[in-house]
Amino acid sequence: MTEEPTGGDLSRLRQLNALAVIRVLRTDQPLTMTELAKRTGLSRASTEDVTRELIGHGWVAEVEPAPGTLGRPARRYRFRADAGWVLGVDIGGHTIRSLVTDLDGDVLSSTCVTVTPQLGRRERLAALDRCVTAALTEAAVAPDQIWSTGVATTGLVDGTGKVMLSDSLAEWTGVDLAGHLRRRVAGPVRVENDSKLAALAESWRGVARHAKDVVFLLAGLRTGTGLIIDGKLHRGFGNSAGEIGALPAIGWLRAPEHLRAWSGAREDEFVDVFLAARDGDREAVRAVRKYTRDIAVGVSALILTLDPELLVIGGGFSRSADVVVEPLRRELDRWCLRTPEIRVSTFGDEGVAFGAVRLALEQVEASLYAGSELSSPAFFGAAGSN
Amino acid sequence: MTEEPTGGDLSRLRQLNALAVIRVLRTDQPLTMTELAKRTGLSRASTEDVTRELIGHGWVAEVEPAPGTLGRPARRYRFRADAGWVLGVDIGGHTIRSLVTDLDGDVLSSTCVTVTPQLGRRERLAALDRCVTAALTEAAVAPDQIWSTGVATTGLVDGTGKVMLSDSLAEWTGVDLAGHLRRRVAGPVRVENDSKLAALAESWRGVARHAKDVVFLLAGLRTGTGLIIDGKLHRGFGNSAGEIGALPAIGWLRAPEHLRAWSGAREDEFVDVFLAARDGDREAVRAVRKYTRDIAVGVSALILTLDPELLVIGGGFSRSADVVVEPLRRELDRWCLRTPEIRVSTFGDEGVAFGAVRLALEQVEASLYAGSELSSPAFFGAAGSN
Repeated sequence: MTEEPTGGDLSRLRQLNALAVIRVLRTDQPLTMTELAKRTGLSRASTEDVTRELIGHGWVAEVEPAPGTLGRPARRYRFRADAGWVLGVDIGGHTIRSLVTDLDGDVLSSTCVTVTPQLGRRERLAALDRCVTAALTEAAVAPDQIWSTGVATTGLVDGTGKVMLSDSLAEWTGVDLAGHLRRRVAGPVRVENDSKLAALAESWRGVARHAKDVVFLLAGLRTGTGLIIDGKLHRGFGNSAGEIGALPAIGWLRAPEHLRAWSGAREDEFVDVFLAARDGDREAVRAVRKYTRDIAVGVSALILTLDPELLVIGGGFSRSADVVVEPLRRELDRWCLRTPEIRVSTFGDEGVAFGAVRLALEQVEASLYAGSELSSPAFFGAAGSN
Repeated sequence: MTEEPTGGDLSRLRQLNALAVIRVLRTDQPLTMTELAKRTGLSRASTEDVTRELIGHGWVAEVEPAPGTLGRPARRYRFRADAGWVLGVDIGGHTIRSLVTDLDGDVLSSTCVTVTPQLGRRERLAALDRCVTAALTEAAVAPDQIWSTGVATTGLVDGTGKVMLSDSLAEWTGVDLAGHLRRRVAGPVRVENDSKLAALAESWRGVARHAKDVVFLLAGLRTGTGLIIDGKLHRGFGNSAGEIGALPAIGWLRAPEHLRAWSGAREDEFVDVFLAARDGDREAVRAVRKYTRDIAVGVSALILTLDPELLVIGGGFSRSADVVVEPLRRELDRWCLRTPEIRVSTFGDEGVAFGAVRLALEQVEASLYAGSELSSPAFFGAAGSN
């Protein structure tokens, strides 16, 4: 039989190889050709071919040897993260946050604007615009230089970037978020639920980096969840996965009431109950325990269903994790066949926004090959200015 | 740059192409070379190459033209399902069932033996041996002609084929099922939880054939679940996924009690309560409604979590689906954001056993390439007789 594959097979193969090289360089760089071949699992010859092609198109650059290097060191290569910029936006009930990053997700600017859940649609969109403009200005990036935008919002989102359902934000159901932002920045705009994107951020560069199956719990004024299954964000058939909190029997709807009761119904005093519990205030300890017990039933349902490697606690309450994690673990041990390792997010308030950045970067990666041809960075700039 | 991929890349590519050809031929055959190229998406030349290689190794055969065919018809090819046999076993509380099938999963023999949950370990293993022997005898296949065996059991199973935990079968925790069967039949033996394998069967050749995300409900004396996520059986980090039924808050543990109360605690009269409900007996209708209400809370938790395309009802009660599905759908509509399509298994009592067959066939497919070389059917026979 002949050893020659056809042109179609070859171009598909080269495309996969190029993406493999880019993926390796984006997580660990600079690398020599030998290291690159080893990490990608490709042959030396294939690695050289695709790297040369990627350099030619502007995606990869050779790195200058460190000053003082003796002899002739092996050439090293890096991904050109500075070839373009992306925008990540988190629209929450109390804060809107924007990040401008390079193609590695390294932050050029981070801005936030304070809002309230009661704010009307028009006012919230105006606040969003102010926040985005401030981030672009601080990063010294023009709106038409943004290659791709990811947006996180509370509620359910459809595939076109419209809010299908939002219980917690006033006048938010039906807003065409993608359409709104497309008129303000260049490049494609994708919108996704905030808990899902916070989970994506943990899986990308957070505490769940190396885990395949992860239950992420967004613990805060609202309780939400995002699922990473087999290394990928699980969206569901109608993009509505992770909404177990809507089921009254699992107790998430009433869980924050225990904290609210202690703090006298003032939402901004939630933090105080954790501080008081940390100081040993018995009523506060009891309120936190009741909260934890209610949260634990739903978390147990998720763990028993999916048997994840990791449970990650993020969201506003994750800063009080020292008061919450141990009572939670004890409750989980009561109900679960195997309580997974519990990790606390290290993103602080930026987890959701980082997830939005990751969504934007996935779009860039998906567009690396326009049709079957490798695109140059210039292609994105051109596409962006439409 | 050079157009020549290296040997390593090529052999990986050819391996993927050969598996693509086999997969297409296993679902739809016989096919002409043109049809085969179209279905696999490979080039004509690549398709011819790998098909020739597969014929040479005994996996694919040319089909004789139908008698009376005029002119010179295009040659057609089929997968040689008759090249070998596999065994699928379902060990339940009340029945043990064995299927011997060819490599397409077409049944040569099906046998079952009646047992009880109270039976001791030694007696249950003896019943298992009788059941397997009867199936082999009926199929006229010798134990050393079995290429691969899949086993389903209630309870949790570890990666080596041992039962980690069984609540419903006496003396079953700790049984080394894989070890036991390896002494009786040739080839590898894999063991998996019965609900998981029933879900796998639906995804393979049941009512969930074309769905990517599926919640499967095993509804019977026990309630279990198996999850298909992104087209694959979801096992979980510790192989314990799908055990939401262990959580008291979701009501599955008490659900069958409503039926048991009606039938006066006799397990074999469960069927009667459905018959009576179908005939309009008010007490029976009420018992079925209470059962359905309890089941629905856990099913809603699964649906809200995963947002599947499809909910499949299988297990013993699936034969009474006409009495159960509508009340269940009404309950799901109360709790779920989007109630998925509900389908009822058509496997009758054989769903779990078919899942075990599929597990065995997956093992055969995984072994098609031993190292990087295509194996011949003879290879499996030889491996089997060790």
